[in-house]
Amino acid sequence: MTTSSVAPLGETLIARLDEAARHSQPGPGVTRLFCSAEHRGVLTLIEAWMRRAGLSPELDAAGNLVGRCPRAQAGEKTLILGSHQDTVIEGGKYDGMLGVALPLLALEALGEAGITLPYGIEVAAFGDEEGTRFQSTLIGSRALAGGFDPASLAARDADGTSLGEALADFGGDPERISGLARDPASVLGYCEVHIEQGPVLERRDHAVGIVTSLTGIERHRVTVTGKAGHAGTTPMAGRRDALVGAAEMIVAVDRRLNATDDLVGVVGKLAVRPDAVNVIPAETTFTLELRSPHAEVRHHGREAILDDCRRLAAERDLEVTIESTYQAEAVECADWLVEALEAACEASGEPAERLFSGAGHDGLAMHALTDIGMLFVRCRDGLSHHPDEAISAADADAATRVLMTFLQALPGRLPRN
Amino acid sequence: MTTSSVAPLGETLIARLDEAARHSQPGPGVTRLFCSAEHRGVLTLIEAWMRRAGLSPELDAAGNLVGRCPRAQAGEKTLILGSHQDTVIEGGKYDGMLGVALPLLALEALGEAGITLPYGIEVAAFGDEEGTRFQSTLIGSRALAGGFDPASLAARDADGTSLGEALADFGGDPERISGLARDPASVLGYCEVHIEQGPVLERRDHAVGIVTSLTGIERHRVTVTGKAGHAGTTPMAGRRDALVGAAEMIVAVDRRLNATDDLVGVVGKLAVRPDAVNVIPAETTFTLELRSPHAEVRHHGREAILDDCRRLAAERDLEVTIESTYQAEAVECADWLVEALEAACEASGEPAERLFSGAGHDGLAMHALTDIGMLFVRCRDGLSHHPDEAISAADADAATRVLMTFLQALPGRLPRN
Repeated sequence: MTTSSVAPLGETLIARLDEAARHSQPGPGVTRLFCSAEHRGVLTLIEAWMRRAGLSPELDAAGNLVGRCPRAQAGEKTLILGSHQDTVIEGGKYDGMLGVALPLLALEALGEAGITLPYGIEVAAFGDEEGTRFQSTLIGSRALAGGFDPASLAARDADGTSLGEALADFGGDPERISGLARDPASVLGYCEVHIEQGPVLERRDHAVGIVTSLTGIERHRVTVTGKAGHAGTTPMAGRRDALVGAAEMIVAVDRRLNATDDLVGVVGKLAVRPDAVNVIPAETTFTLELRSPHAEVRHHGREAILDDCRRLAAERDLEVTIESTYQAEAVECADWLVEALEAACEASGEPAERLFSGAGHDGLAMHALTDIGMLFVRCRDGLSHHPDEAISAADADAATRVLMTFLQALPGRLPRN
Repeated sequence: MTTSSVAPLGETLIARLDEAARHSQPGPGVTRLFCSAEHRGVLTLIEAWMRRAGLSPELDAAGNLVGRCPRAQAGEKTLILGSHQDTVIEGGKYDGMLGVALPLLALEALGEAGITLPYGIEVAAFGDEEGTRFQSTLIGSRALAGGFDPASLAARDADGTSLGEALADFGGDPERISGLARDPASVLGYCEVHIEQGPVLERRDHAVGIVTSLTGIERHRVTVTGKAGHAGTTPMAGRRDALVGAAEMIVAVDRRLNATDDLVGVVGKLAVRPDAVNVIPAETTFTLELRSPHAEVRHHGREAILDDCRRLAAERDLEVTIESTYQAEAVECADWLVEALEAACEASGEPAERLFSGAGHDGLAMHALTDIGMLFVRCRDGLSHHPDEAISAADADAATRVLMTFLQALPGRLPRN
């Protein structure tokens, strides 16, 4: 690695992430799906990084590449690091892959400095967190945490290939996934480095921040039903226009979210039927997603919003049905890991404050197995899931040094059992 | 035809329209596209009706089936009657086909009663008015009126077949369409019978009504552009959500239309990008259609609505572009035809008042050739473009009798040249 720079680790890391980004479907941005040729390609690179970090790489039955140090292989208590290799469609270079490349570089740098860690280390490059290909998220981390649902093997991608088939072709083994669950007694904790994907660190002018909790998420499908009609011959009075009703609901959702602290949400998908230039919309379906680190805030917000939708529908003589499609409760990071990361920032001269994560991460699944902690790295313009996603070499350097400090100090920070 | 009923002509007409409706793609409703197998099938039926009415049927170069009486064939001044054979997707039995079957039955009944008309008669079953297959409306009537645009021959259907190819396969001749234009000096006028497609006659409790004008129509494509972002990590404040902005515009459009007399409109199509459950919408595109019988009402309404859209976009830091995609000015029915139809209603004992048409019809094109008149027939629940579209046998009977009276009285009602 370069040593003449002011941020040598950061520049090496950026270069490695650029190289990883070449394993992508044609651009713009990075598109690397679970069990794809691009996934296979990037694993070759990660295996090399693992070996340089003193870890033995192995592709597991769930399509995760895991690297273990000799202590971990010998059954000593182990800290799990890592993140996911997959991306959204036309995503960026950093979401996921930063959390794979950074700890491997930190371990390599510690090794080069002659420092050995007195506990087991395992770094995981989870195959699928985004759910881009099979719409079933957190496949890799659920497998390690013992929360893998075999029913998800039947999920099919856009070409009709099932998750089970894709996994078998890739070298995984659907039958053996349940055997991947780690023994909680053998794990010290799970720590993930990830880009923030939001603007908070940029506003604070901090390179890194310490995550206190991962947001709870719920999703609903709202269907508004009115009555189609000829748009030229039906008087305005008495129309039952499902799109006008849905528009009023979307405006109400936005007002409610703007008026509520610690609650964000979006209406991201919408479809109209029959979707014709000269026909009154008979049906409009939209998705509603709500996120909050506080369950009660999310629950109260949801009730108020759904009440708004029902009231607005009734005012226009429309029907509305609301279907819950997804729910994940918020997850707290462990106090001892939050404090250990804070201490590492302070010792590294990096000002850092706490923040919560509005995005879900592999920690949502790993929390079922062990204590979790997360370090966020500032990203430019708060932008993520986009080809222009970017972090600076200086911030990458700072985060790598923080993690190195954290890893060295960990033994003195472990909770008493 | 049955003679024991109280509405014998109406019952015959309903039976004929039921038979015509069998020439359809699989249901629900009637789907009969221009130059399709179903189009070919229904022409066999219409040819038989034409022969019973004393007309000689002929498929013209534009895919219209036209039937002419001997006087019309001999070059005498001719009244053109008719409507279109095509339907929307999953439409009804009456929109269009009523205006083909009814005048043919009226002529047949006059012939059976030994009545001969002292002028030429031509009945047209226009191939395409709806534009369902090629998105290019009024093809048939434009050809007769001399307003056919050869550029529309390149329009392609969903399977990639061009209008020109489909027409040639069907027995038409793209090269000869321009030769179909009638000499205005040879035409007395154009008169069309059509279902109302709205609720006015039902509210009046009248079987028929006399159309004073056909609505002007304009269509726009509105594109609202904001900024995509992760829906969990981007704070609500400062979002540039293109769907929330579009929703506010749709609500404003509805308010403005409800507050303006003689102006109707709809936002019928809408699309969101990227249309993902967890991404802030970056772009929303919707159509806006406005109709009014008064050009100034439509123009003022459009300016007010588009000003609303621009103001709402600016308030949310969104960009908005508005593209005009279609415009057809309102068309007046000729006073002498309106009065002749009124007199025929009165003589037939049918109470009837004037109304305007919120829908476009073949008259929009025929107006370029000759004076136009229209008789509307009440339809159940004002419903059209729907499988449940319906008229009663009694109303069909009344309308047939009105047209028979109109045809007999026409020579005394013609304007002086």
